[in-house]
Amino acid sequence: MYNEKGDHSIQVCFSPLSWPLFEKEDALVIVTDIFRATTAICAALHNKVKAIIPVETIRESEHWKAKGYVSAGERDGVTLHGADFGNSPFNFMAPALQGKTIAMNTTNGTRAIKMAAAGNNLVVIGAFSNLSAVCAYAVRIRKEIIILCAGWKDRFSMEDSLFAGAATEKIIELGAGAFHTVCDSAIASAGLWQQAKDDPLTYIEKAAHRHRLKRLGLDDILEYSLTRDSTNVVPILKGDRLVAADHR
Amino acid sequence: MYNEKGDHSIQVCFSPLSWPLFEKEDALVIVTDIFRATTAICAALHNKVKAIIPVETIRESEHWKAKGYVSAGERDGVTLHGADFGNSPFNFMAPALQGKTIAMNTTNGTRAIKMAAAGNNLVVIGAFSNLSAVCAYAVRIRKEIIILCAGWKDRFSMEDSLFAGAATEKIIELGAGAFHTVCDSAIASAGLWQQAKDDPLTYIEKAAHRHRLKRLGLDDILEYSLTRDSTNVVPILKGDRLVAADHR
Repeated sequence: MYNEKGDHSIQVCFSPLSWPLFEKEDALVIVTDIFRATTAICAALHNKVKAIIPVETIRESEHWKAKGYVSAGERDGVTLHGADFGNSPFNFMAPALQGKTIAMNTTNGTRAIKMAAAGNNLVVIGAFSNLSAVCAYAVRIRKEIIILCAGWKDRFSMEDSLFAGAATEKIIELGAGAFHTVCDSAIASAGLWQQAKDDPLTYIEKAAHRHRLKRLGLDDILEYSLTRDSTNVVPILKGDRLVAADHR
Repeated sequence: MYNEKGDHSIQVCFSPLSWPLFEKEDALVIVTDIFRATTAICAALHNKVKAIIPVETIRESEHWKAKGYVSAGERDGVTLHGADFGNSPFNFMAPALQGKTIAMNTTNGTRAIKMAAAGNNLVVIGAFSNLSAVCAYAVRIRKEIIILCAGWKDRFSMEDSLFAGAATEKIIELGAGAFHTVCDSAIASAGLWQQAKDDPLTYIEKAAHRHRLKRLGLDDILEYSLTRDSTNVVPILKGDRLVAADHR
């Protein structure tokens, strides 16, 4: 979808449920699941983990674990039975994981990644931790851009939408006229980000998922997950796994 | 869904596509389609039109027209072949329509109204023109509240979401502690409304649907559609038709 004012469109898809409305060929799709999958994936690849295999089912997790891979995973924020650890980004920072490949099972993230990959799209992983890096990469690639929010059980989620807004703003800034929003969800995301950017942690205090995390005792990751630009890594999907793009 | 801090929840559903995630029994559903169906319905009932029958198909429109009803309708903003007029709110203000029943065919609104009615829900129609009235009615009824945005072809639409935010804010204010948001989409809507409320017309200039209307020459309704509280009418679904609730 081309816009009169710019070469390439930026669209934001608030939920995997809406993906069929956005689906296109040969686009660059930035998948985000801030709490917690995509923040964890960036942390892992920054820590020189070799690759992350996103998986959806417990059977898949068991398959990779039986083959000797490290297995991470959670469901509704609780570590999966049989997994080596849950999906907190902090779990992926251990030096012992360097060079390893990890099968990662997530509630919302994996399905979004797999959907995004259809149609010969280029799939990259976005989080606040790699915001500038992933946006610079997207601008350099110069395809149509869709930001796909993993959401929470197919619902709109505040933290993913704030990331979408931050990325929309950054891509427009870095793209210097080559990228423009063409849907209200991108405009709304950018508007919400304007409200939140000075203090995302306080802003997200209002959000529903933040309370779910708190109830589960998993809210130690909030500050880290909302901190921008702690890494330059850009995870990119190659075949069945996510690896660091060689872009520097 | 009850919230610890208040008796009743307010949820916002950004698109009919997401409705299955929200569906519940015995709730009050405020359906909104600002450009143009629900603004037109409020204008009609304010003008003492007897009832509006929301219809979805051209065959239904023809059925009602053959029975002698007034037929209004459009598809993608263009007046339907065979209809007496399109869905501009201004068309429903003619004195000659007083006491008449109108079959109204709309792109997005009718489907949303019909979905909302399932599950023994009470369906009311919201627009900026009846914002305070519909919110006061909702507060008095004291059911769980879902605001269903008709959207644009199942996508998020800015104007409907801004209405959802305005209504969320107003219901919380009028409810004096009895209503609370329980989903991120309600929180996001209210956030967007905070940005837009001082000058909704300028804010909506950014939105995609506004440009579609402009291309179609249908943007004469913008200012009217975004003006708050020009009527006290609360359209309510009774059987197959919308009539003014007797609430004063």
